[in-house]
Amino acid sequence: MNYCSNCGAPVTLRVPPGDQRPRHVCAACGTIHYDNPRLVVGCVPEHDGQILLCRRAIEPRLGYWTVPAGFMENGETLQQAAARESYEEALARVEIGSLLAVVHVLHARQVHVFFRATLPAAEFGSGVESLEVELFAPADIPWSDLAFPSTEFALRRYFEDRAAGREPHHFTTIDRRLKPGGGSHS
Amino acid sequence: MNYCSNCGAPVTLRVPPGDQRPRHVCAACGTIHYDNPRLVVGCVPEHDGQILLCRRAIEPRLGYWTVPAGFMENGETLQQAAARESYEEALARVEIGSLLAVVHVLHARQVHVFFRATLPAAEFGSGVESLEVELFAPADIPWSDLAFPSTEFALRRYFEDRAAGREPHHFTTIDRRLKPGGGSHS
Repeated sequence: MNYCSNCGAPVTLRVPPGDQRPRHVCAACGTIHYDNPRLVVGCVPEHDGQILLCRRAIEPRLGYWTVPAGFMENGETLQQAAARESYEEALARVEIGSLLAVVHVLHARQVHVFFRATLPAAEFGSGVESLEVELFAPADIPWSDLAFPSTEFALRRYFEDRAAGREPHHFTTIDRRLKPGGGSHS
Repeated sequence: MNYCSNCGAPVTLRVPPGDQRPRHVCAACGTIHYDNPRLVVGCVPEHDGQILLCRRAIEPRLGYWTVPAGFMENGETLQQAAARESYEEALARVEIGSLLAVVHVLHARQVHVFFRATLPAAEFGSGVESLEVELFAPADIPWSDLAFPSTEFALRRYFEDRAAGREPHHFTTIDRRLKPGGGSHS
């Protein structure tokens, strides 16, 4: 952020009075601009024992496989966001089920939320953000070609829980930020 | 949003190619500015059967009672955010427990997430955003002076679940947006 989105003047990075963190502050109009984590919401759609995956047509991770997921929009619930993304990316009308996983992706400033889901009919196709969309039997999941660590976390927990006949939710954290004083990724 | 935070030129509200929603777009540098829901994270801290509440020293809802909660920051987990807010608002060092509630607050473009929590020692005080902080027995909760509907939802589910000896999580949605074509709040 370089300019104030309210008045157009340059912003400076400083700790506002009573705050503990640096924020982009406008000296002209006084607006404090907060930058907060964004929600990415998706689901694991199952049809007749198989899982619906999308191969990404966009960066990042173009060409890799993921479950339907994307940024939550204003005015919708987490479940609505997951269902919308399934339709946009896979032309699939899913029924959203229980909470599966919450992944804190610290380096991306994102919180990924995944639900279990059912795809009642084997009707799907490639949305504009997908190269192809397919149903995979558990043994055929392309583990080495998954787009994101959070995708893999959600899918692995999904199969473990399904085998155990349970539907708990899981939290985890992924952090690939540069280490202070270091030069490599963790 | 009036100006591009990247280059300072005026932005216009339009639907970008391939998108379905209006976004603030900069005609000068091409940046598309997305506005997404923000996460507010809190907890219900229990000490010896009593619940820690804060009376707000800031707007909105100055003077009303709430559980410790606030905006999630970049670089932290949901649980860390809940613990941090408890310390900032109530000078209380809590141990975060299980997921209690997720409240979609559509009119505020927020998702509120609450955890169960334990306050091991009865040590607390008023942070700069609190007028006072107190432990309340269940019978003394100031239900009519709670700050937000999401606070009440979290507290009611907390006590119900505690009475039942269970720790499930709950989803709900609050929507006070103006109705299309109408003029009153729902």
